[in-house]
Amino acid sequence: MDELRVVGATIVADPDRVLPAAEIAYSPVTGRVTYLGPVRGPARPVDLDGIGRLALPGLVNAHTHAGMSLLRGHSDDQPFDRWLGHVRAFELRMTRDDIRAGLRLSMAEMIRSGTVAFADMYLWDAGLLADARDAGLRVLAATAVFGYDAVAYPAATPETGAQVLDRTPALAAEVAGDDLVQVTFGPHAPYTCGPELLADVARRAATHDLAAHIHLSETAGEVRDTLSRHGCSPIELAHRVGLDAGRMHVAHAVHPDGDADLGVLAGPTVTVAHCPVSNLKLGAGVAPLPEFRAGGVSAGLGTDSMASNNSADLFEEMKTAVLLARGVRRDPTAVLAADVLRMATQGGARAFGGRLSGRLAVGEPADLIVLDVTAPHATPMPDPVAHLVYAARGSDVTDVVVAGRRLLADGRLTTLDEAAIREDVRSRVSRIAATLG
Amino acid sequence: MDELRVVGATIVADPDRVLPAAEIAYSPVTGRVTYLGPVRGPARPVDLDGIGRLALPGLVNAHTHAGMSLLRGHSDDQPFDRWLGHVRAFELRMTRDDIRAGLRLSMAEMIRSGTVAFADMYLWDAGLLADARDAGLRVLAATAVFGYDAVAYPAATPETGAQVLDRTPALAAEVAGDDLVQVTFGPHAPYTCGPELLADVARRAATHDLAAHIHLSETAGEVRDTLSRHGCSPIELAHRVGLDAGRMHVAHAVHPDGDADLGVLAGPTVTVAHCPVSNLKLGAGVAPLPEFRAGGVSAGLGTDSMASNNSADLFEEMKTAVLLARGVRRDPTAVLAADVLRMATQGGARAFGGRLSGRLAVGEPADLIVLDVTAPHATPMPDPVAHLVYAARGSDVTDVVVAGRRLLADGRLTTLDEAAIREDVRSRVSRIAATLG
Repeated sequence: MDELRVVGATIVADPDRVLPAAEIAYSPVTGRVTYLGPVRGPARPVDLDGIGRLALPGLVNAHTHAGMSLLRGHSDDQPFDRWLGHVRAFELRMTRDDIRAGLRLSMAEMIRSGTVAFADMYLWDAGLLADARDAGLRVLAATAVFGYDAVAYPAATPETGAQVLDRTPALAAEVAGDDLVQVTFGPHAPYTCGPELLADVARRAATHDLAAHIHLSETAGEVRDTLSRHGCSPIELAHRVGLDAGRMHVAHAVHPDGDADLGVLAGPTVTVAHCPVSNLKLGAGVAPLPEFRAGGVSAGLGTDSMASNNSADLFEEMKTAVLLARGVRRDPTAVLAADVLRMATQGGARAFGGRLSGRLAVGEPADLIVLDVTAPHATPMPDPVAHLVYAARGSDVTDVVVAGRRLLADGRLTTLDEAAIREDVRSRVSRIAATLG
Repeated sequence: MDELRVVGATIVADPDRVLPAAEIAYSPVTGRVTYLGPVRGPARPVDLDGIGRLALPGLVNAHTHAGMSLLRGHSDDQPFDRWLGHVRAFELRMTRDDIRAGLRLSMAEMIRSGTVAFADMYLWDAGLLADARDAGLRVLAATAVFGYDAVAYPAATPETGAQVLDRTPALAAEVAGDDLVQVTFGPHAPYTCGPELLADVARRAATHDLAAHIHLSETAGEVRDTLSRHGCSPIELAHRVGLDAGRMHVAHAVHPDGDADLGVLAGPTVTVAHCPVSNLKLGAGVAPLPEFRAGGVSAGLGTDSMASNNSADLFEEMKTAVLLARGVRRDPTAVLAADVLRMATQGGARAFGGRLSGRLAVGEPADLIVLDVTAPHATPMPDPVAHLVYAARGSDVTDVVVAGRRLLADGRLTTLDEAAIREDVRSRVSRIAATLG
């Protein structure tokens, strides 16, 4: 089949371009969009009948830890320190296969809720990258580093941070030809890595032309501590060691310390992942999204891990992002629906370097999702962009195409066995929980 | 059939009582719970197989304007005053049949997302109450009054506020024997009604033993204006005129003015509807939920109208409520999952007088909902209460029972024709939009 088509849908090609009753076609061979415009003829049996549906670019999760999903609900409603202790105790017991099971669970959930690409920081190796590729999602994969000598996942692998830094360029080289998979460095945060290690990462990133994905200024306490320990904010520290000389992808940035920090975040090689649900749930606060926008910061939306959300649904994240910006500022025009839809598509896509645009257009990757818009909560729908942000849900997604491959077809996952994943996850969680007492 | 059963489900009878792999039974004749406990035997064909499901008390929407759903998405992303103008222009063109179509659309959405009862303020008459009864939902129905001479819905009915006040006790008497339907007064707000009218409502409410449902202290501007005009806050004004001498149901209360206001809200006959999504979307701010709890305020959760939300999904409202309380205070224990689940059930139920408990127990009304918990986003589920608040969604609801009648059966609405409602709503919205230019 040369070309597959979605026929008759409302198509939100990007937040500024909505085509009613239109057609989009793509090549399953090249994985690119081949046509976008008026309907050219009736849908064939292989095509997707778009009547009563809405098509848009697939959503990009700009920050998550997909391998952590076995921890969903493991320790809710605890003070932050106790939460962290519970999470850590669980993580220390997770084998690589547990992490793999969690990754597969997360990918099933992401596909179901319309995510086509995710920027991740956890444990990654060639086998786990192959799992992501087999599932059909795009991934920007960083293995977390918590210090040169720190062993992050002892039950999964005994490797130290230094070893992770050494093997990361090799892993990146191994997947260099892969359209779906990219590898980056993953220095966890200034408070776990320290300036020397961050500077080392910056040098290695420059040498190997790799990006670095890092948590910065998530809590006010972190900013205070970094100021007192290093005389500068976490964001400024990352800048001083040169992490933003190459591609730097920053999770959170809830507490940028004035215009200097905003200036760093607005740098041409810097992207930010705004994670409002996680920031609220962990009591971190509310990132200054209106200042990000005013300052020219390129930001996407991330769900963070299932331990701090507890879902991977970017529709929920979009609504929370726009509501928070409107409500906390008491200004209903502080951030608009189109702004957060752009964040969840183009904003996140920028973290993937030049590969993704987050827009639907001829020649762009065929990364698109289709929603049912016939439910009561989708009626009426005078503005499709506002609908996507204020009323749509992940569960409205019926079809997901990534690089021309259909990962969700009329509500069925085509690349993952959901029932098997579920049973596998449950038995693994039981095993770990039993050892936690 | 004497008894219908849900067999083998995890049952959250209330947030403090979770029964794994349990059974609940109810009588479709009396509409009450007849059994709650261990499974007594296999499910019969008429029963609901609860394996992989979670059952809980039906959710109560403590504040909405269901007749407004034709306005969903009509004017998003506008400054508040322009939004209000657009909404008003649309409302002035709505006939009673338009409002009826909107009500039916809202009820379909509410049932689908697990709501069994709603406290409403819009236009109500015997016919619209019959629609609610036919749909099978419980309603606390107030017709809004905007001043003695104000005609709220000119295209729907030419009646003035004075006429609404006069006919409300008669309408209440007409439905006095109806288990599902209750009528209250609906003085819109202090800034639309004035002290004399509010005092009049208080007298009439006392005479006829009816409650009053009112918006109070939604925005900081409203509090400032009322202070300068009347020398007291909106909440204090409602107290001075005696509205809280009887049952007073308060929407919003985003800006209580100190302990005195909190004391009024904590009164034994006062209930509050916390509407976090609407308050954020309209830029009103964030109600002090931790202070409500500390002060003994009895609060439920409301979605407000589809023009300010834009959905009627209380699962979304629960998550937003708990996240906001945790995040804005930067305290992950400010409000717990169990607290907001209690709000969405028992809290809202209290606004319905003694009729509803919001708990599942033998002898209580059989108002229960059943969720599928086999999806990826429901795996794992170590804590069913946390799951309901942090990960579940309205779209997980498969079955809804109100007073022993099944309104949603395995995902199908039994009392409303969804496709017909959708087409009806669409054509009405087109007609009205055409006249708005």
